Parts: sequence; C-alpha cells; structure tokens
Amino acid sequence: MLFKVDMQVNIPLDADPAVIEDIKREEKAYSQALQQAGKWRHIWRVAGQYANVSIFDVENAQELHDVLLGLPLYKFMEIKVEALCRHPSSIRDDDR
Amino acid sequence: MLFKVDMQVNIPLDADPAVIEDIKREEKAYSQALQQAGKWRHIWRVAGQYANVSIFDVENAQELHDVLLGLPLYKFMEIKVEALCRHPSSIRDDDR
Amino acid sequence: MLFKVDMQVNIPLDADPAVIEDIKREEKAYSQALQQAGKWRHIWRVAGQYANVSIFDVENAQELHDVLLGLPLYKFMEIKVEALCRHPSSIRDDDR
Amino acid sequence: MLFKVDMQVNIPLDADPAVIEDIKREEKAYSQALQQAGKWRHIWRVAGQYANVSIFDVENAQELHDVLLGLPLYKFMEIKVEALCRHPSSIRDDDR
Amino acid sequence: MLFKVDMQVNIPLDADPAVIEDIKREEKAYSQALQQAGKWRHIWRVAGQYANVSIFDVENAQELHDVLLGLPLYKFMEIKVEALCRHPSSIRDDDR
Amino acid sequence: MLFKVDMQVNIPLDADPAVIEDIKREEKAYSQALQQAGKWRHIWRVAGQYANVSIFDVENAQELHDVLLGLPLYKFMEIKVEALCRHPSSIRDDDR
Amino acid sequence: MLFKVDMQVNIPLDADPAVIEDIKREEKAYSQALQQAGKWRHIWRVAGQYANVSIFDVENAQELHDVLLGLPLYKFMEIKVEALCRHPSSIRDDDR
Amino acid sequence: MLFKVDMQVNIPLDADPAVIEDIKREEKAYSQALQQAGKWRHIWRVAGQYANVSIFDVENAQELHDVLLGLPLYKFMEIKVEALCRHPSSIRDDDR
Amino acid sequence: MLFKVDMQVNIPLDADPAVIEDIKREEKAYSQALQQAGKWRHIWRVAGQYANVSIFDVENAQELHDVLLGLPLYKFMEIKVEALCRHPSSIRDDDR
Amino acid sequence: MLFKVDMQVNIPLDADPAVIEDIKREEKAYSQALQQAGKWRHIWRVAGQYANVSIFDVENAQELHDVLLGLPLYKFMEIKVEALCRHPSSIRDDDR
Repeated sequence: MLFKVDMQVNIPLDADPAVIEDIKREEKAYSQALQQAGKWRHIWRVAGQYANVSIFDVENAQELHDVLLGLPLYKFMEIKVEALCRHPSSIRDDDR
Repeated sequence: MLFKVDMQVNIPLDADPAVIEDIKREEKAYSQALQQAGKWRHIWRVAGQYANVSIFDVENAQELHDVLLGLPLYKFMEIKVEALCRHPSSIRDDDR
Repeated sequence: MLFKVDMQVNIPLDADPAVIEDIKREEKAYSQALQQAGKWRHIWRVAGQYANVSIFDVENAQELHDVLLGLPLYKFMEIKVEALCRHPSSIRDDDR
Repeated sequence: MLFKVDMQVNIPLDADPAVIEDIKREEKAYSQALQQAGKWRHIWRVAGQYANVSIFDVENAQELHDVLLGLPLYKFMEIKVEALCRHPSSIRDDDR
Repeated sequence: MLFKVDMQVNIPLDADPAVIEDIKREEKAYSQALQQAGKWRHIWRVAGQYANVSIFDVENAQELHDVLLGLPLYKFMEIKVEALCRHPSSIRDDDR
Repeated sequence: MLFKVDMQVNIPLDADPAVIEDIKREEKAYSQALQQAGKWRHIWRVAGQYANVSIFDVENAQELHDVLLGLPLYKFMEIKVEALCRHPSSIRDDDR
Repeated sequence: MLFKVDMQVNIPLDADPAVIEDIKREEKAYSQALQQAGKWRHIWRVAGQYANVSIFDVENAQELHDVLLGLPLYKFMEIKVEALCRHPSSIRDDDR
Repeated sequence: MLFKVDMQVNIPLDADPAVIEDIKREEKAYSQALQQAGKWRHIWRVAGQYANVSIFDVENAQELHDVLLGLPLYKFMEIKVEALCRHPSSIRDDDR
Repeated sequence: MLFKVDMQVNIPLDADPAVIEDIKREEKAYSQALQQAGKWRHIWRVAGQYANVSIFDVENAQELHDVLLGLPLYKFMEIKVEALCRHPSSIRDDDR
Repeated sequence: MLFKVDMQVNIPLDADPAVIEDIKREEKAYSQALQQAGKWRHIWRVAGQYANVSIFDVENAQELHDVLLGLPLYKFMEIKVEALCRHPSSIRDDDR
C-alpha cells in the first residue's frame, strides 16, 4: 500500500553539529536500506527547504508507523501522511 | 526538471454530468499522452478525495505552466506546485 | 486496516428538499449495509454539526476510496482521512 | 456521554529520556485502568504521529476534564475535544 | 451540562427579505421558549456582527444537538461548540 | 459594558511548581474579588483545556485592559476579546 | 469609547451597477454624517483593496453595533472589531 | 504617506525585568519624539493585549522601515504594515 | 516608491468567454502602457497559476491604488500589497 | 530559470551580537557575489520586516537549492519558493 509522506526537518539552533552529522549519516543509511528493500520507493528534496517528499510502499499503516518512528531524525521532524491509491489514468503498473 | 503538483478537482454541483464526463475523458487522454512522452512521470489518487499527487519532468517552469494550463479540467482545479531536486539519500538514478 | 474519516455535509441552500430526502435515505441504507458487512465500524454524530466521525475497517486505501466515492452524499461532503494503527496502550483486541 | 479527543504529544527535545519513560509507563497504566472501567472506550494511534484518537464515555464534561487533566503526559499534550451523540444511521447499540 | 455555542448567521444576498423576516420571528420565539425553559441560559450579540455567543444548559450532547438543529436559522449558521464545566474560581452556584 | 474574554494559560514546562502554585492562588483571589465586585460576571472552564471563557462587565475598554493586565497569570496567557451587546432575543435583564 | 473597525467590501460580480452606485452614494452620506457628528473619527482606504480602516468614538458596544448595522453596504461587508484604549505613550489628548 | 502598523510585543518570560523597564522607557521617549515630529500620528492600545495600532506619516517606505527598526522594543515585536491612502468619504483634511 | 503586488485572477466558471477575452486584451494593453511609462516595473507569471507577481514604481500609495483599481480584471482579482525599500545588499541602482 | 524567494530572518534573542554581525557581513558578500554573477537578479527589503523578496535566475531547482542552503543566515530563515515564467504581457526581454 502506498503513502505519500512530507517530512520537514527542524534541527534546533543549539544542537551539537557533530551529533547532528552522526544522526544524518544514520538517517541516510536507514533510508537507503529501506529503499533497497522496496519499502521507501521515492525520495525527493523540496527546493530551498530542509524537507523531502517521499513515497512509501508498505503492508499497512502499522508498518508505515514503525518505519517512520524508526527514522533517526524523527524527533526533529514535522510529518504529514496521505494514503494513496492507483489513479485510473496512470499508465505505470508499479504506481499502485 | 522535477515538480510535485497537487491537484484538487472541484466540479460545480450544477454542472451537466454529460459535459463533465466528456471533459474527464479528454483529461485522461491528455494525461496518458503526457505520461507516454515522459513529461508526467507519476500520478496517484489521494484516498477519499477527488485529488491527485503528480510528479512532472519538464524542461522548466514555462513548460510546466503550459502543460498545466492545457489540462481539460484546469478551470475546476486548485493547484499547488513545488520544485523538487535530487535527494542526496536517493538510490534511484531516475529520481532527479 | 483502520481509517478515521471526518465527514462534513454541506447541502446547498437551494437544493430540492424532496431530492435531498431521497439521497439521505439512500445514504442511510448504504451506511448500514457497510456497517453490517463490518467495513464501517463506527459512526458518531458531532454535536451541533451536520457532520460525523467514522471508523472504517477496509483492506486498503483503494477499498476506502471506493467506499467513500460511493456515498450518495459524497458530492456534498468535505472529507478528512487519517490512517490509524493499534495503540500500544489499547486493551481491546478489535481496535486494530 | 461520548467525546472524541485528539491528543498530540510533544516531548521537549531536552527532556530526560529516563523521566519520560517513567511518565509513559504511568500513562499506559492510567489509560488501561480507565479503559477497564469503561470510561476510555477506544484509543487508536495516528499513523506516523506521536498522537492518538480516543473515544471517552463519561458522565459529563466535568468528568472528562478531570480524566484528561489527570493524564501523566497532559502537560506535553495539545488536546482537541468534540462532543458526540448517537448517529441516526448507526446500527451499534453501544455507540451512544 | 453547559455548552458555549458561537453562532454566525450568513443570510444569502439573494434571499427573499419577507421570508427571512418570518424565519427571524420564529427564531426569536424559539430562542425565548428555550430561555424560559432554562435550556438556553444566556445569549449576547457580538458587536458589529450578525453573530451571538450563547450558553446552553442541557442534559447532554444529544439534547444540545436537537436544540441546535431545531433553530429556524440553522441552515444559514456556522456553529462552534465547546463543552464547559465549573471553574474552580467561580463564586456563582449556577455557573455549573 | 460587556466583554467576552477567552483566556488560554500556557505554563512553561520548566516553571518552578511552587512559584506557579503561589501565582494560581493569587489568581483565584484576584478573580473572586472581581467577581464579588460584579466586574467579572461569569467564568467557566473549557473541558479538557487549561483555559476559561469569561464575561466581564466594566465601564469601558480601559477598565477591561487594566483588569486583564492585573491578572497574576497574565504573562502566561493568550487572550481574545470580543465586545458584546444585548441580544434582541434575550429575556434576561442582566445580560446587557 | 474607541473601536478600530476593518471593513472589507465584497460586491457580488452579478450585482446591478446602478443599484450599487446608489448604495455607495448612501454609504458616503451616512459615513459623512457620522463623521460630522464625531462618531466616526477616522476613515482611511487600504491601498489596492476595496477596504477601509476606521476609528469610531461611540458610547459603547451597543452604539457601535447600531452604527455598523446601519451601513448601507453592511450586507456586503466582512468586518473586524477591536476595542481600543489610550496608549500610555500617546501625546494626543483626543486619542482616548 | 500614511501607513497603519500593528505592533504586538512579546517579552520573553525569562527577560530581566529591570532591563525591560529600561527599554520601555526608551521606547516611550522614542515614540513621543516621533509623535512630536509629526511622523507617528496616532497610537492606541488594543484592549487586553500588549499591542498597539499606530498610524505613521512618513516620506516613503524607506523612512517607515528606518523608524520601525529603530524601535527599542523592535526585536520583541511582531509587526504588520498596510499602506493607506485618503478615503473618498473622509471629511478630514489631515487623514491623507 | 516600490510595491510588490501579488495578483490572483479568479474568473467565474459561468463567465462569457468572449467577454473575458475582451477584458484580457484590455488588461494586456493597460499593463503594457503602464510598463512603458515605467510605473509597472516587472511582471512575472507564477507557474501553474492564473496569477502574477509584479513590482510597481509609483509616487505613493494613492497612485498604486488608482493603478490597481483601474485594472480591467480588478473585480476578479485577489490582491496582496507589500511596500518595499532598497535592500542594503543590493548592487542595482534601479532597485530602489 | 526564474524563482521568487521570500526570506524571513529570525535571529534568536539570545544570539551573540558579534557573531551575528559577522554572519551578516558574510551574507552581504555572498549575496553580492551572486548578484554580480547574475544568479541573484533582484533583492528588495520588505518595509518594517527583517525580510526580503528576491528573484533568482538559475539553471534549475538544484542550483537554487544549493544557492539557498549556502546562505550564511540560512539556519535562521523561513523561506518560500515560487517558480516563475515569462508573463505574456511583459515588455521586458530580461524578465524570463
């Protein structure tokens, strides 16, 4: 099942840069493992923002919840979730 | 260049259903031609809404504008545009 | 899979009352059939509003979308959807 | 009398994790005691959020107020309350 | 049980003034009967607006819902409801 | 002259509980003195919130301003003010 | 007593221009009579908008309400009211 | 040229009261000097708020900007600016 | 003096296309005359919207108001105005 | 390709003024280098705000993103981006 997730990252101004760099490295590894597993289908950067638009392909809302709460940057994020389904005009077999 | 476009369709309650059906047929053909040309990369339905989330791959903002204004349902739509770029964590070569 | 759906009904002031009564009767029958089938688990009235809060139990977002678009009052509704999952503190086996 | 309550939990970034874990344990016990007493009828997790949707069955607004202010996590919560009543289409005797 | 209700009245510009005057007369009678019955405790006009702030004293949310839906002007109203309870600093015995 | 005032109290999470308890005691005394003087006509708790809805009866906006700025909890409050006048449907002589 | 009032005028697109011109003439005469009586102290146009910012000096909220509801353009207006009082830094004796 | 400026002052809860008192004294002197110079035409307190509504009469937007940034309390303020012009119904020669 | 103006055009769905085409032709001529006179410095289309971002260089707010109210499409527009001044980092002599 | 960017700068109240002065000096140099390179076409100050309206001329969204994230003040900024294209009424060859 597909979900669109908008993630906005708000790093506190007084955060320790070294700690943040570590978390970002973990975040990248976490995201890429989920991409390779086919769970995190797409991720794009929003121009000018520390934010992304992502498409997840998971079993259900529970799996989405577990994946999002596992994000190393989760506690700094503002997240919006929208459940998606196949569009009748789509010609791609994988966009469902 | 990639853009995420959110389209919300608001058909007036007093519209002639036959006319609307014709416009929807044109909309579908228009969308599928652009998908086949590689301009309209993805289109998903938002669950419960007469709305979609789309990803466009166009030369620039001018081409996006021309494509959107050509939508047969354009005059009934509320549209939001966000410019996207490649996310540094992405593993897909085509999401740029 | 569970979804919370908020439905706000906006009947146009110039609608024909007899037509609206017919649609409301169909809406009630449609809702009760889905409740008996176990798809529409709960429906409550919001006090003072022509609105309801509902819990749906469906296969996935596609089934939710089909159920909602089939609502006889759909074209008069403003709808909000939230995907739910089991709360770790819940003691009810059926709230998942 | 039924109330829908939306609770969004915002733990400060600099909170002591051990203290928070203790409060969450108390919160779970508090919630489950109220569920067993029939006061807190339903609780669902909102996918992707540290938030829940709950249905309370209490004597009146005063009892709801006392129950909510007693939540161990109350000071971290943003809360919305809506009074509910039986929906005329409902087929469940207990959703009133 | 007490509820604060904010009512904003939006009469359509093309409404027949004679019909509206009739409805307003019915509204006044309806409101005064409920005030005399002790159900509608207070009603104040908001300065500069076709709006009021009201305090209702009803058995429960169901009675409030029935009272509000019975308002002759209901279909022109935008309504907000808040459940109230006794304030610990209040010195009036009747504000509960 | 009557004003409706909505007060939302936001105590900082790191406030000293003993200091806050003192301020709340002063707030209660301050409110009750004004109630006894007939300036603060009504105060109700909003269910589930650290907030109240109040009706003030003061000479003019200047007196309202002085009364509100004198609130011991004022610096923690978010305040909304609406000027009220007698509603033509009201049957109470004192709601003016 | 002073009030700041923001008035936004929304003339319906299908209004009869001759009728609107008549109402605007009445509005101007009504406004100027109140200005001469000292009730409507200031009126400024907001640049680029069919809107004004006004300062009224009236006995109380009831008089303000009566003045505003008497505006010939009232039914086309969106109105915001704020009660004002003397600013301690003001050097003008008349701005109270 | 006239501008309406809304200023909302947000003093941080942990500010040193003595420092704030000094800044407020400077603010008052700064405001009164500009009032005497005819640049700051009006200033009113918004009832119940630490906020004011002001009318400035300056050469142009640059002078307004310089005046506002010079406010001793500027860094604590949330500011809204609207350019004004003479209202065709105004009878005052100085409200332009 | 410079102003940024955002114009959003909302043509009613039932407008006569021939009439609208005429108004758009007038709008273009009106805009280009003002551009040639140096009053309307810049105009850009917002991608995907029937909207523009414009920079005006006028004597004062009164001239801006007259120019905007003269727009043939004015009655269909939602307009936002912001007064601009020279940015201290700007290297262009004409952006003041 | 053109983008309009609105930048609002929020310097924390407890920031070290000397550090902020250094960052502002870097910001100015960074901005002027990009202006000289033709990437940052226009920058205007919004009157009364620590904010600017800017027009960028970049290859694509990726270049815009890199330019914005490189701003020395970026971490203090709230940013809004809109993709622009040539307006059919524009008479300037460079506004594309």
